[in-house]
Amino acid sequence: MAVYTEVPDDALATFVESYGLGEVIAFKGIAEGVENSNFYLATDQGQYILTLYEKRVAVDDLPFFVGLVEHLAGHGLQCPVPVRDNEERAIRELCGRPAAIFTFLDGISVRRPKTKHCEQVGRTLGQLHLASDGYELVRPNALGLLGWAPLFAHFETEADGISPGLEQLIAGELDYLKAAWPTDLPSGVIHADLFPDNIFFRRDEVSGVIDFYFACNDAFGYDLAICLNAWCFEADHSYNITKGRALFRGYESVRRLSVAERAAMPLLARGAALRFLLTRSYDWINTSSTALVKPKDPLEYARRLRFHQTIENASGFGLA
Amino acid sequence: MAVYTEVPDDALATFVESYGLGEVIAFKGIAEGVENSNFYLATDQGQYILTLYEKRVAVDDLPFFVGLVEHLAGHGLQCPVPVRDNEERAIRELCGRPAAIFTFLDGISVRRPKTKHCEQVGRTLGQLHLASDGYELVRPNALGLLGWAPLFAHFETEADGISPGLEQLIAGELDYLKAAWPTDLPSGVIHADLFPDNIFFRRDEVSGVIDFYFACNDAFGYDLAICLNAWCFEADHSYNITKGRALFRGYESVRRLSVAERAAMPLLARGAALRFLLTRSYDWINTSSTALVKPKDPLEYARRLRFHQTIENASGFGLA
Repeated sequence: MAVYTEVPDDALATFVESYGLGEVIAFKGIAEGVENSNFYLATDQGQYILTLYEKRVAVDDLPFFVGLVEHLAGHGLQCPVPVRDNEERAIRELCGRPAAIFTFLDGISVRRPKTKHCEQVGRTLGQLHLASDGYELVRPNALGLLGWAPLFAHFETEADGISPGLEQLIAGELDYLKAAWPTDLPSGVIHADLFPDNIFFRRDEVSGVIDFYFACNDAFGYDLAICLNAWCFEADHSYNITKGRALFRGYESVRRLSVAERAAMPLLARGAALRFLLTRSYDWINTSSTALVKPKDPLEYARRLRFHQTIENASGFGLA
Repeated sequence: MAVYTEVPDDALATFVESYGLGEVIAFKGIAEGVENSNFYLATDQGQYILTLYEKRVAVDDLPFFVGLVEHLAGHGLQCPVPVRDNEERAIRELCGRPAAIFTFLDGISVRRPKTKHCEQVGRTLGQLHLASDGYELVRPNALGLLGWAPLFAHFETEADGISPGLEQLIAGELDYLKAAWPTDLPSGVIHADLFPDNIFFRRDEVSGVIDFYFACNDAFGYDLAICLNAWCFEADHSYNITKGRALFRGYESVRRLSVAERAAMPLLARGAALRFLLTRSYDWINTSSTALVKPKDPLEYARRLRFHQTIENASGFGLA
């Protein structure tokens, strides 16, 4: 949770005026979001989210993200879309940072997802994959297979300081996945970070998807495997096969998985677990003690990875 | 800026239900406020602020604060008031902390106040003092004259580590004020922390006052002296007599200062500067480097104090 940049009232008023959004009625920094500074903004014309992009988001990627949500919303997915200013620009600058104003999305995220939420998430992810069809910009997955080894190299010698045996677990898994990773699965734009924080619900129905700043081109099944990791494990780290079945059922109600995707699910789940194990380990080691954002526990994902290593085929996840 | 406590969606829904406020539509942690966790809460019945009281607010003081804003609002001051639950309770418990839901106040705080804002603040402070008349609960000022020496004792030996000479400045001022402090000025409930963060404006008119968690019984003139320190100095630490005049003019348009209050203003301004110098110094020394809230620079108030020491009578502040 963090707001990294303070926005003075006079700079804000000038900025909002250039969108023709009227008078600023309320403005509050939001203690959520790790990468950017976000603000709740109300004017006499409506509610918005103002985002200032801090250093972790590459400026060159912003057209991809902004164009993507406009494309997805245009194809029926509920997500915040940028408001364009009086000169039709979606990305501007405020307080020395790239900035954009987005439409406000009603709904709240669930902290302890139930089975019904998992089904909804599966359906929404399927809708997102279908809706992304035809989007023309491309963004490689910097945190895909090719990114994992370089990321590990940054903290390899310190990994056992997080937990003894972690270095060996990751090194072995990297070798295994490098040899076995499927490369010809159905692909397109994926969300790549569809954790419970990033889906809003109203009355147990999805009201929208947020935070597309990891979106990229990769295998659809990998996106589903990320959700499997993020939504279908209990607080005691055990896999909940009922939730897994619900996730797959929801997804397949919109987009049917191919035989190859099913077969690849254990590998994809391992890869997804490894990806979050790597980034969380890196953050764990590299977060200064004065940081506003507390790093998340990497070991949750070491446990998920070890579980996935025991799964021989998709039926182990409840995928029929 | 901070949210210290996470509120799960299910606990929130149950909590909001007991107020009869309908369905939760939006819920976002607010990255403001140092003492408590605050959340923007929207339901299908309106907008609210949910406050969870963290350790720095004494539970025993909550009835004073809650009753005060109800009293002030009942006498025409714009401020957030607690919503009462289905059993008429204003203070509840949520996630193991005392909690209250407040009405939402439109407006935004100004970062660089202009003269017109200072006049408005003066007027609003006068209205607050008049509106507090008749409020029956009493809360002594823990950060008044009697509290300063014990606070200083906590960090006296470390004061020069902040800035050489600080120990002597504070010790000398404490001695001086202990002997000279006026004790028979007009008194009542004061806000005691009316900084720019704590007043909202719309179109340069005050839309309300927030954050009464330092409110207490003390001299009205001392409250005005706090505003003098908080609103009438420039970024280069120079006193802006035009803003000072505007502050006094606004205040006196509502409540006329007595001869004794005028005469005491240089002393009150010194006391107010010392109070913030003391608490900021204490926080500066005692804030762990991992804290979510960065401590404010105490030396701003050392400079203000040294300025006030040169003022012989209220005309030095522009008070005719």
